[in-house]
Amino acid sequence: MREIEGGISAIDGLSACGIRRDRYGLALIACSGIAAGVFTRNKVRAAPIDLTSKNLAREGRLDGVIANSGCANAYTGARGLEDAGEMAGILAEILKTERSRIAVASTGVIGRYLDIDLLKALAEEAKGSFSETPQASQDAARAIMTTDTRIKEAAIEHGGIKVAGICKGAGMIEPNMATMLAFLYTDAKISREDLAESLAEAVDSSFNMLTVDGDTSTNDMVLITATGKQSCQKEVFKEALSHVCTTLARKMARDGEGASKYMETVVSGARTDMDARLAAKAVSRSNLVKTAIYGEDPNWGRIVCAIGRSGADFDPNDITLRLQGAGGEVTLVDRGRIVDGVLEEAERLMKGKEIYILIDLHSGEGHARSFGCDLTHEYIDINANYTT
Amino acid sequence: MREIEGGISAIDGLSACGIRRDRYGLALIACSGIAAGVFTRNKVRAAPIDLTSKNLAREGRLDGVIANSGCANAYTGARGLEDAGEMAGILAEILKTERSRIAVASTGVIGRYLDIDLLKALAEEAKGSFSETPQASQDAARAIMTTDTRIKEAAIEHGGIKVAGICKGAGMIEPNMATMLAFLYTDAKISREDLAESLAEAVDSSFNMLTVDGDTSTNDMVLITATGKQSCQKEVFKEALSHVCTTLARKMARDGEGASKYMETVVSGARTDMDARLAAKAVSRSNLVKTAIYGEDPNWGRIVCAIGRSGADFDPNDITLRLQGAGGEVTLVDRGRIVDGVLEEAERLMKGKEIYILIDLHSGEGHARSFGCDLTHEYIDINANYTT
Repeated sequence: MREIEGGISAIDGLSACGIRRDRYGLALIACSGIAAGVFTRNKVRAAPIDLTSKNLAREGRLDGVIANSGCANAYTGARGLEDAGEMAGILAEILKTERSRIAVASTGVIGRYLDIDLLKALAEEAKGSFSETPQASQDAARAIMTTDTRIKEAAIEHGGIKVAGICKGAGMIEPNMATMLAFLYTDAKISREDLAESLAEAVDSSFNMLTVDGDTSTNDMVLITATGKQSCQKEVFKEALSHVCTTLARKMARDGEGASKYMETVVSGARTDMDARLAAKAVSRSNLVKTAIYGEDPNWGRIVCAIGRSGADFDPNDITLRLQGAGGEVTLVDRGRIVDGVLEEAERLMKGKEIYILIDLHSGEGHARSFGCDLTHEYIDINANYTT
Repeated sequence: MREIEGGISAIDGLSACGIRRDRYGLALIACSGIAAGVFTRNKVRAAPIDLTSKNLAREGRLDGVIANSGCANAYTGARGLEDAGEMAGILAEILKTERSRIAVASTGVIGRYLDIDLLKALAEEAKGSFSETPQASQDAARAIMTTDTRIKEAAIEHGGIKVAGICKGAGMIEPNMATMLAFLYTDAKISREDLAESLAEAVDSSFNMLTVDGDTSTNDMVLITATGKQSCQKEVFKEALSHVCTTLARKMARDGEGASKYMETVVSGARTDMDARLAAKAVSRSNLVKTAIYGEDPNWGRIVCAIGRSGADFDPNDITLRLQGAGGEVTLVDRGRIVDGVLEEAERLMKGKEIYILIDLHSGEGHARSFGCDLTHEYIDINANYTT
């Protein structure tokens, strides 16, 4: 597996452009192929989610994606659905295709109508810069940012095929925070069923294990389009797709709202993978663990407490808990026994920017990994005044 | 129903004392009667939880409660259980009763052993001040505080009986944050079964609907002791107990770690009470709602979003959402329709210290109420450096 440059522009036949004006951004991506998607499980679904999931179910193919930041077009009723259709129309006209072959995505404030005239003006201005260069991938990635501080791209080559993606946001698909959008592309030749199955699996171990604040957005969407130019084995494709999704998930966690530290939790030895997932998610979702990481405070009892309420089945007296940080590792609890005299070393390790919490439940073979970040003053600043 | 003075000292035959030294605090309460309890559902249960729940199950009666702050005696294995037994012994000796008639409770840092010698010294010093005065209730309430900024007491008279309680903490029993402890007393004559049933019901609509940060402690405990001196009707007792528990839950929410505003969420018109509970809890648990309240930002889409991911069954297009704050009320969404031109008024109302979020799901008769607070910079300060 080899990382390559260019973001989604690494995929042959894809072209894109992106533009920002004030709070609004607009990304246009042209790429034809069979397609699959994963959508928010929030009962309140934004209009673009309804529209795109219906189109995908019916057509099974996409010719392009139009995505805006600045307004989520969520909780906007019939008018919202019309507006999402209008958005599809903007790109369908440029690409000379059917509206039903266009995916629409939105992210931003809930409960506001889209400014369709502004989006049309932005598209008019941007469409001249459609290109297949790495710059195009970056422009599209930048256009969909909201509270993101950096663009997020990934691309790899593996067993003769390429998989690439851009995304925005910093949360889980469920639960999720600021909307998470990811647009993935591959040149792999693969059936639609295998594509959908591979996407669901990759999302489950990457975006679904990512948490910033435990909220689920109304607008979460992950799409993949496969151009089908390169034959490949299904397992090779799955490996490549998982790798790209995990890379993007880590980038989102590192750029979590207000994050000062990246935090990865690895649970092994769980009774089942599901137990491991529950435990890993509970740790990365705990405000008390997140603030302790921020404060570089080795208050590991909060980690044990989070595992305890996670719903995972395990023996509380047989946990091993280790911490990896600035160039070292320390064992805090060894098979249920509190290790003496290590808190100073733990404090030193916590001064690093990347903290790994390693938990062995000694109950089986279950394994999971979750991606998160600390909870900081900046998170409060960002979220206390978002609409105003 | 009439509020009365004196906290738990309002109950005839109860005497108490309390003392603090640095981070440690010790409360001693003497009161004999049948008793019932509700304990944390965290899989990691602190030693005092194990000890007290076993004793209560066996004896069904209590002669007293000994509770310390400063150390949770959680995740402390066999030595922790011995230490909890020693604590029971301290009060049993003073009261000349059996250890098994003493409830033990602890709150503080997890994964540290109790300083039993210090607790013995504190008890030795405090026991001379055992009294039946209102001061004794306050001293006991103060002794169990950790990050609490105020003592929390409640007492009422209703239908000839009295119910009173003290508590500490600011969280839910499940999920819960900083440990929540509540010690309730009544002079009602009631069977042990009715006492346990009434307690479970009252806890469900009060402490279990309280959230500060969604963490569940290893040490949560609610105890009630009934001296049986006053005959009463079961329904009257239930009303009185619910009232006291709800009063204490509100006090804990108002004193939530770092809270600058109190936030109460009332869900009506849900399909079932369970749907209403899910929706109400999801709102008060959402970091995004909590930071918006802190920022006085009427970003109501976050409230709708939280209800949407709560698991409650409802029609997203038929929600009514109102906000009550500084001396007024505003309707933001009316049966699914976004109300125009009210955001300025909503902003004004949000400047109040008490914010009520009123949600009607128009799907049935289900009703619930949750108690919470905003998420502030001070929360981060308090929790980023708790052990050190």
